[in-house]
Parts: sequence; structure tokens; C-alpha cells
Amino acid sequence: MNKILIALTIAGLTISCGKETQEVVTQEVQPAPVVSTPKNIIMIVGDGMGPTYTTAYRYFKDDPSTPRVENTVFDRHLVGMSSTYPDTHHNYVTDSAAAATALSSAIKTYNGAVAVDMDKQNVETVLERAKSLGMKTGVVVTSQINHATPASYLSHNDYRYNYNAIADSYIDNGIQADLYLGGGWKFFIREDRNLVEEFEDNGFNYIDSYQLLDSVSTDKPLLGLFGDKGLPWALDDTNKHRLSAMTKTATKHLENEDGYFLLIEGSQIDWAGHSNDIASAMGEMDDLAKTLEYLETYVKEHPDTLVVITADHSTGGVTLGVDGVFQWDPKVLRTMKQSPNSIANLLEKVDITTEYANSLFNFELTDEEISKLITVKNDTATAIKIAEVTGIEDARSGKEYDPFTVNNELYKAIKEVINARTFTGWTSSGHTAADVPVFAMGNNKALFNGYQDNTDIAKKIFTLLDNK
Amino acid sequence: MNKILIALTIAGLTISCGKETQEVVTQEVQPAPVVSTPKNIIMIVGDGMGPTYTTAYRYFKDDPSTPRVENTVFDRHLVGMSSTYPDTHHNYVTDSAAAATALSSAIKTYNGAVAVDMDKQNVETVLERAKSLGMKTGVVVTSQINHATPASYLSHNDYRYNYNAIADSYIDNGIQADLYLGGGWKFFIREDRNLVEEFEDNGFNYIDSYQLLDSVSTDKPLLGLFGDKGLPWALDDTNKHRLSAMTKTATKHLENEDGYFLLIEGSQIDWAGHSNDIASAMGEMDDLAKTLEYLETYVKEHPDTLVVITADHSTGGVTLGVDGVFQWDPKVLRTMKQSPNSIANLLEKVDITTEYANSLFNFELTDEEISKLITVKNDTATAIKIAEVTGIEDARSGKEYDPFTVNNELYKAIKEVINARTFTGWTSSGHTAADVPVFAMGNNKALFNGYQDNTDIAKKIFTLLDNK
Repeated sequence: MNKILIALTIAGLTISCGKETQEVVTQEVQPAPVVSTPKNIIMIVGDGMGPTYTTAYRYFKDDPSTPRVENTVFDRHLVGMSSTYPDTHHNYVTDSAAAATALSSAIKTYNGAVAVDMDKQNVETVLERAKSLGMKTGVVVTSQINHATPASYLSHNDYRYNYNAIADSYIDNGIQADLYLGGGWKFFIREDRNLVEEFEDNGFNYIDSYQLLDSVSTDKPLLGLFGDKGLPWALDDTNKHRLSAMTKTATKHLENEDGYFLLIEGSQIDWAGHSNDIASAMGEMDDLAKTLEYLETYVKEHPDTLVVITADHSTGGVTLGVDGVFQWDPKVLRTMKQSPNSIANLLEKVDITTEYANSLFNFELTDEEISKLITVKNDTATAIKIAEVTGIEDARSGKEYDPFTVNNELYKAIKEVINARTFTGWTSSGHTAADVPVFAMGNNKALFNGYQDNTDIAKKIFTLLDNK
Repeated sequence: MNKILIALTIAGLTISCGKETQEVVTQEVQPAPVVSTPKNIIMIVGDGMGPTYTTAYRYFKDDPSTPRVENTVFDRHLVGMSSTYPDTHHNYVTDSAAAATALSSAIKTYNGAVAVDMDKQNVETVLERAKSLGMKTGVVVTSQINHATPASYLSHNDYRYNYNAIADSYIDNGIQADLYLGGGWKFFIREDRNLVEEFEDNGFNYIDSYQLLDSVSTDKPLLGLFGDKGLPWALDDTNKHRLSAMTKTATKHLENEDGYFLLIEGSQIDWAGHSNDIASAMGEMDDLAKTLEYLETYVKEHPDTLVVITADHSTGGVTLGVDGVFQWDPKVLRTMKQSPNSIANLLEKVDITTEYANSLFNFELTDEEISKLITVKNDTATAIKIAEVTGIEDARSGKEYDPFTVNNELYKAIKEVINARTFTGWTSSGHTAADVPVFAMGNNKALFNGYQDNTDIAKKIFTLLDNK
């Protein structure tokens, strides 16, 4: 109810219905205040964050000791939903590049396209428009900074996986942003080219440790790379809220009298979805939620700022409830301290004991669960040995994205334990077509009410920029 | 953009961005008109209609011959989303009874509860409140009229499956509504009691054929039952848009100077979800969409009417895209003329030929698909015969809800063909916890903007009723 009261400035009164009392609205709608075009625009993409993820996060964060389920920052700012289909006519399931291009450039394009249209021609992005209008610009992501989503705001390429070419373009096509924070050493410090040095030559400060986020001076533009490709999973990182830490630095660095455009991406919600890993997904969601909570305060202090949050698509076909059971139980997710990936890495190195496994999962495994992990580990090792000795490759080997290794089979078994414990279902290692939620805060947030296509979001941002 | 322009009465201007021109909003927000409390309130529940169903319906209805995906009536009226968790603390996945009680009575209760609280005490429903305020009331559903959702507005019972007791209560606890349309002969015309006659004795007209919907006189209250339990699937019914036909009759019958409260339920979206049957789901969605399109016109002519549409939960864990493929392809769904259930009934009776199967599916099956159907049919018949001769029951037999019969195994195989063709995924025969979309039209629709709990929807309706 708060949202409506704030949004429309409606007179409130208190009534009682059923057993509960709540504040409700009457019909005396006051004129909405005339607000100016936003000075700063922050666009946030929760990669892969379909509506099931924001619902899951609410129940993951629910305090079971209270009688009611607590609302989240997502609940406080939901305004609408968005469709996400690409233009490979008429397929309906997008990839992150086509969806990011829709969000950045207001056009439909083919899966894999980075801010180019169906004819592979460059299309202007909202970040480029903001820069051309004299605003500062920045990107803050948990993937490599040349991954599909940030690249679709900063660059143009006919294929998202041309990572080196996209990284090169960040210098070669003119530096588009005043701040870049995320991962990417592998692509920016290469044998053939050191783009970090080139950024420094172009007047940038460079940092490679979260510790320097607070202290780095704001007198120069900033490049911060904190991982080889993407950052570690939030659950495993030295700072589990690294997205919000980077965002705080970004807002401090970008503030200026002409305003700024900032793209933020919670990149790895999608990666957890592709892996069907609900524990890592909740870790990434928590980092994104902390970022929104920070921005909630920021917008109060800077009411000339608009924050729009959406997802590019939903990933993994995740469902809360599975196999006919009317239940979703996030209890074990609330205590986990590291990702299934990390647990697999540690269990691979030792003979698995109940005590050690319990210490890694941070909840008590059943005998059956322990047995399963031991069996998977031993059977996989045996199958690999037989293949080595006989020269006959196991039918399961050889998939680059899903290799038949002890580590990977253990990783799968660990996720199966967690999915079964929580009653989490998955249908895919890819994306699905479900509409995604849209959230907004601050100046002009009502523009994003209701249903819209992802291209509409970019159109609205272009309009706000042009009205400045 | 239309929604925003209409909702907030914002001045428009035309700008160009990218390759497209569109109408966008500026900052000059005009005062919203002061509107009265709605005279009529229509509450619509799409049972099981999580956000994936409304997305699927858009792509199902898309015309592939046009360059853009067409919007649906759902898109035009989306205003927010709703959480659906019940009060069996803290489980998060609701059944239809607890969710309908939340929507009717503004309280959280246990799964199975029909308008009773955790202590099994009756709670007042919005329909009862409307009646006590002198408004007319009605229910229009495609299930039996004593099914969980309508029962949770009309009655009180500690267990939703007490169907006869709930039917009896419609007379014994005082007749609550002026109009009942749906299914239910089995429960209303019984050996021990004929409730239809009792309704007639209480001054009701009774009809049992859709043909009479237009002609039945409006001078008496109306009971219309058109099926033994639920109505046939929309795809198989003599009127594929029977929900909209019943709704037209209902609005005509209920109009009066004191206003009315009408509950409408697209009941069988949920049943299609439980069966993992995307073809029947789209048939039910189409009937609901036609109902909303009728009400869209109705609200224009009766601006003193509020229509709120939501789902009680999502069913089946349906996903658009599956098994790593970035695709959802509803093509075959667009041509199908009967349900998988009906096709199974017909194929069970004959030797399956390609020509006959193609005529039933109304698209061309591949040789592999035909072989699969023939194999499933023969193998099931053989297994049943062996069980009969040997007296050893097949391990697959004996489940009441999923019997091992030729008919049921054929039904499953048919659905597998369609799910594979369309790239539709499912994780459950039950419900899932994902938030559901909320739509609203007409008087005071903005009350339902943003995120809300399902109990909030009832609270808002109670308030509107009390402010009349």
C-alpha cells in the first residue's frame, strides 16, 4: 500500500477488515507533483532474473520466527513486467545479447548481437546518447566488463563471444565510459595487448582489489578489474556484497552537475540459473538486493535520480515446488556459506566424511546424501580410469560445457541434494520466454508502470535523456 | 504507453529514437480525475495462471505474418503482481482453497480451507459483505460451482473436498448469490437431495444448456449448470468461449441500481497445468481472454465498474523453453481443434493410422511420433493383459489420479509429442510458489498497482465496498 500512497499522493484512512487493520486509500486523488527530468539515470539488469527468482528471494529471506513473510526491496519497487523476445522471427526466447541490445538501443535483433541490428549495423545506445549529451557514464557488473550485457551498452559487435575484439573496442572506438567495474583480466591484460595500460595512458586510475574501492581518488576516471573473467560467486567472494560495494564507489565517482548514466548488472544470477544452482542464485540475488537497498537510500538523498531495474530474460526454467509436492523449503539455503562449486572443489580433494561434508554444506546431510556423494565420486573416478586404460571413451565424456570429470559430477550431485532439499525444479540449462518483472525508484518511476516490451524501456530512457 | 497516458492523464508528445517513432510522456502530470467508489466489482481468478501462462498466451496468439508480436488483453491491463503463500507456516506453496480464501476474506489459512481460518472458524467473504450491503452477487466458473474457488466466496468448510456438504450449504446456510453459472450436476442433482429443485423452489430459474443463456428471463435469480463436474475443456466444448458467454449473461442479469459483486473463474487453466497439457491450457486462456475483451468493452460502457484479475497460484511449473534449447514454438497449438484428452479417447478405439492421427491433431505428425503412439498403445495393452493372466499387477498400475490404462498412457504420449514440438517444460503435477500477475480495469484500478499480497486484494475490495 505504501507504494500507492507515495506514487499518487492519495489521502489515507484506516479501516478494519477481517482480523487485520491496514491503511487504505480513498478516492481523493491529489495532483501528482510536477517533477523534473531525472539528472541521473541508473539502469539495472538482473541477468536471468525472471519472476521466480524475485519470489524465491522473498521466501529465502523470510524470517521463520515471525508470523508474517517479510517484504523485500523488490516488493517495495515493483511497477510492471516486460516481454523479452528477440527478433529471430518468431522464436520468443532471447539470449542476453539480443535482450541487452533491446534494453540499450530500443531495437529487436538476433540472438548474439551486441548493439547491432538484424543487418549487423551499429545502433546507438542510451549510454552513448548520455555521453553525447555531456553526462558521465559508467558500468558496474559481476561478469567480465566485456560480457554481453555491458558490451551492448558500450560497444557494437555482430557476435557476443568476440570477447577480445569487444575489449579492444573499448579503447579503439573511443572510450565511452568514465567508470568500469567488474571482471576481465583475461581479456584486458593479454600477451598481444595490455588494455589496462592503455586505459591508464588515457588518464584512468586502475584498481584490482575491492579494498581500493573506497580509497581510490575521484579525480580521474576509473577502471577496476577484480577477476580473470567473471567475479567469484557472491557466496565465495571475499566480499559477498561486491556489487553493492562497487555501486557505492560508482555513484560517488560519477556524480557531477551534468548528471550520469550508470549501467549495473547482477550478471551471475543467470550463471546460477544455467547451472541449475539455487544456492548460488540466492547469493547473487542477495548481492543485487543489497545494491537496491543502497540505491533506495541514495534516491532519497538524490531525488533527481531514476533507477530502473529489470531482467533480460529468465534462466533455467526454475520452479519453486517440484514433482507434485506443494512445498518450497529454502531452509538450508539460509545457512550455506559457500557455493556448490566450491564444495565440489573441496570434496574432490579428500575422502568424503560426514563431518567434513556437513562442515562444507553448513547443514546436516543424511546418510543417503553422503552415500550419494561418495558413490558419484568413486563411480566417476572408476569410469575415467577404465576409459584411460581401455582407450574407450565413456559416452558421457567430451562435452566442453558439461565435462565428465569427478569435479563436475560431484558438482551435479551436490546441486541435486540442494534441489531435492528445497523442492526446487529446473527444466533447462538455457533461457525461457516468461515475462520478467520491472522495478523502478525515484524520478519518473511511474513511466515504467504496467506491461511493456524490453524495447519500450530503452525508448523511455532515450526520451528522458532527450528532454534534459 | 497507452496505459500510462490513460492512467495518469499525462500530456503526450512524439519523438523519434532508433528506427521507430512512438508517443511518449513528458513531466506535465495533470491531476487525476476524482472518481467515485465502483458500483459494480468483478473479481476474476485465472486458476493456476502464473506469469508464464499470460506470456505463453501472447506468443500463442502472435500472428507470424506480421513483423511484430501483438499485445493481448492481459498486456493492456497489467498493473502489478501478487504473492500467494498460505499460512501453513512457512511452506510458501498454496492450494486453490487457501488462496481463494485469501482473495475472498483477506486472511491467510491452511491448504484445503474454504473461508475458514487456522482455527476452522468462518471468516466473512467479500461476496457476503457485498450481499449484506444490498448488492446483487454472482459466480461464473468453468469448474463445478462448489469447487474450491467459488466455494471460498460463497460458503465455509474446513475441507474443500466436502463437495456435497458445500453444495448443500448453498441452500442451507441461506442463498448467497443471485446467479450461479458453471458445472456440477453430480453434486446438485443427487439421489439423496435435488438442490436444483430446491433452488427453483427458492425462486430461481434453472437452465442446463448454453443455448438458453441468451434467452433466459432476467426477472428471477438464475442457476445454470452445464456439466456433471467441471465443464468440458474449452477446446472440446460446444462453445469454446463458454466463460465469456456465461459472463455476458451474468452482467446482464446482475445489473441493478445498487450494484453487484461478481466472481468469475477460469477454473481449468489449473487443470491443464496439473496435467502438463499446454494445448488445453491455451484453450482455457483463450476463453478467459475473450471474457476480458468483453469486459474491456463493458467497462467502457459502465465506467462505474471495477474489474480485478489475478491468479491464485501457478500450476505445473511450466516453462517456455526446455532442455537447453532457446526456443518456444506454439505453431501446432494454433491449429489444434481438440484436447489431447479427446484425441486419446478417439485413438484408443481404433488402429492408429497416420491419416487419422493427423486429422485429430490437425497437424502432420512425424513417423517417429506416430510410432511412439502405436508403441505406447500396444505395450500398455500387452502389459495389462499379462497382469490379468498372471495375476501379477504391473508396478505402474493402481494410482487413482494417474491410472495405468491404455487411455491414460496414450494421453501422456500425446502430451509428450506436443510438449516436445512446442519446447514446453514442466516440473510438477502440482502448484509452485511464483508470484502471479495482477490486472485491473475501470474504476479505481490504480489501487492494485505494484506488488501486493493476495490478502491485500481482498482488503482493498472490502474497503471499496465499505466506502459505497
